[in-house]
Amino acid sequence: MEYCKKGDTLFFPRPPVAAFYAAVGGKKEGEGPLHDCFDRLFEDNSLGEDTWEKSESALQRRCVETLLQKAKLTLDQLDFLLAGDLQNQCTASGYTLRGLDVPFVGLYGACSTMTEGLGLAAALVAGGMARRAAALASSHFCAAERQFRGPLEYGGKRTPTAQWTVTGAGSVLVTPEGNGPFIRAVTFGRVRDYQITDISNMGAAMAPAAAETILRYLADSGTKPEQFDAIYTGDLGQVGSRLLAQLLEREGVVLPNHRDCGLMIYSPDQDVQAGGSGCGCSASVLAGLVLPELRKGRQRRVLFLSTGALMSQTTFLQGESIPGVAHLVELSATPKEEWK
Amino acid sequence: MEYCKKGDTLFFPRPPVAAFYAAVGGKKEGEGPLHDCFDRLFEDNSLGEDTWEKSESALQRRCVETLLQKAKLTLDQLDFLLAGDLQNQCTASGYTLRGLDVPFVGLYGACSTMTEGLGLAAALVAGGMARRAAALASSHFCAAERQFRGPLEYGGKRTPTAQWTVTGAGSVLVTPEGNGPFIRAVTFGRVRDYQITDISNMGAAMAPAAAETILRYLADSGTKPEQFDAIYTGDLGQVGSRLLAQLLEREGVVLPNHRDCGLMIYSPDQDVQAGGSGCGCSASVLAGLVLPELRKGRQRRVLFLSTGALMSQTTFLQGESIPGVAHLVELSATPKEEWK
Repeated sequence: MEYCKKGDTLFFPRPPVAAFYAAVGGKKEGEGPLHDCFDRLFEDNSLGEDTWEKSESALQRRCVETLLQKAKLTLDQLDFLLAGDLQNQCTASGYTLRGLDVPFVGLYGACSTMTEGLGLAAALVAGGMARRAAALASSHFCAAERQFRGPLEYGGKRTPTAQWTVTGAGSVLVTPEGNGPFIRAVTFGRVRDYQITDISNMGAAMAPAAAETILRYLADSGTKPEQFDAIYTGDLGQVGSRLLAQLLEREGVVLPNHRDCGLMIYSPDQDVQAGGSGCGCSASVLAGLVLPELRKGRQRRVLFLSTGALMSQTTFLQGESIPGVAHLVELSATPKEEWK
Repeated sequence: MEYCKKGDTLFFPRPPVAAFYAAVGGKKEGEGPLHDCFDRLFEDNSLGEDTWEKSESALQRRCVETLLQKAKLTLDQLDFLLAGDLQNQCTASGYTLRGLDVPFVGLYGACSTMTEGLGLAAALVAGGMARRAAALASSHFCAAERQFRGPLEYGGKRTPTAQWTVTGAGSVLVTPEGNGPFIRAVTFGRVRDYQITDISNMGAAMAPAAAETILRYLADSGTKPEQFDAIYTGDLGQVGSRLLAQLLEREGVVLPNHRDCGLMIYSPDQDVQAGGSGCGCSASVLAGLVLPELRKGRQRRVLFLSTGALMSQTTFLQGESIPGVAHLVELSATPKEEWK
């Protein structure tokens, strides 16, 4: 068997396909500039559930239902569902899977979960270990806010560096064959910690990991940023995006085509401070915008990263700094390297 | 490429190898019947750190260091480290990886994490996606107790069904070639919930998932329990082990050779109520006892399951029942089916 890893990056000789994808969102997401990208939007962020934690599971369930409808598949035709979220002990996913009878691979990558799951699904499919593997990630503003910061009812003032956790979910079905978009490569990230201790400045905590993963991918692949139509990051927001540019500049790398999902999902007048965040941010933008653009041929080749901040409320209260991690997938409209 | 999944189970045509493994434990584990199985034992469960959460990361770090020493490898020779734990947002692993510069795949499977990680590592190696993938899981009594139940200082009375979270970690290095033990098959589990709401009765919550996964593996493989030298479960304890036997009996299946890591790691006079539990329970018994027994040829073929309870303190306080999941690996001393 051909071994396809170079440096930290897996390059798939026969790239798996992101054959179907679904994005769901809440009220604020529906009011933002990407409102037409979502397969389903919910005016009521509770989705009829009596706790925000259950509401997030309901979002996940609707997301997977929509994915299966689009793929014209039933649940028992899935090999695995790889899923994760931000709740303590990943209970959004665990409780969703209680109602979805399918083999479950639980992930924790904080806001990097979508790319982690998509990368693993692609690696399993490329290696002949699955024919239909689905990746799923979600977040919910109300569940995250009270877990990581304070009760919603407290109405605490948000700092300018704070980001708004997306109420949303995204899922992708990966298969060995199809018309694309193709997952050509995956780089699983290394943890980086630049001693950021401000829990309201996740962008700064995650930017070093994003820079690290981008630099490793570029070195492993021998590519330059301008060879891509876009390089997406998950949820660096305004602060993290600026820091990413600075960190890369130090290494002589400029991204002429960087776009951050956290800056795309809301408009500046939506009062979200430095932008959107959460597993659901990159997950819904990937499934709702990036993969469809590749499918339509409006973009040909992109890098997509999700970035995660690996702290908890406990480590924050203990004064620990916040480590970050970023995983990357290379996506393209065609399986071959037409651009070289 | 040959597709090797039948039912829920991946059968590897060229089984990957659990080439090296390391187990570390704390004071109570060193006082138990498996004290000779650990590569390293720590008299002081703090490992010199100032919080129990950091102590767990230190346990993980010592475990990986020991693994690399045994394998005569350096960290940069690992392709990936797949790791998880019980702390909120899996911070034991996240903070460990801050100090271990290697691509990180974060998992959450509660106490099923060791088998989930080993199964994924095996699937990645079998598919040509890695040459050296390591799986790691840990738990720490003091970190878990205050997170899930109450402050240690409170000194709450433990119920007879309660289990004692193991202070320990286990890690396994998976490679494509070697002398064994071989990972012949993996079954990723489905979530099962039998409406157990008692957070001090994890064994009961996890037993249905264990039964489900065992029955699926037996059906997928066409094997019978008596074809295995042992069928291990991770941490069902006394209550869960009895329930597992009852659930399987209903389906006409008897396990003549069931052993539970939670009942092996402590002796009854260690005052651990229904037995040991935690990610570190199955992880350390796998790495410290089960894999060495296969290496020495004392056992030829076993099934090894870890079982996880997927609740959080939040879902518990919200009155939710506790879903469980169980992942299974088939391990053997030889790569071929000499027993058929």
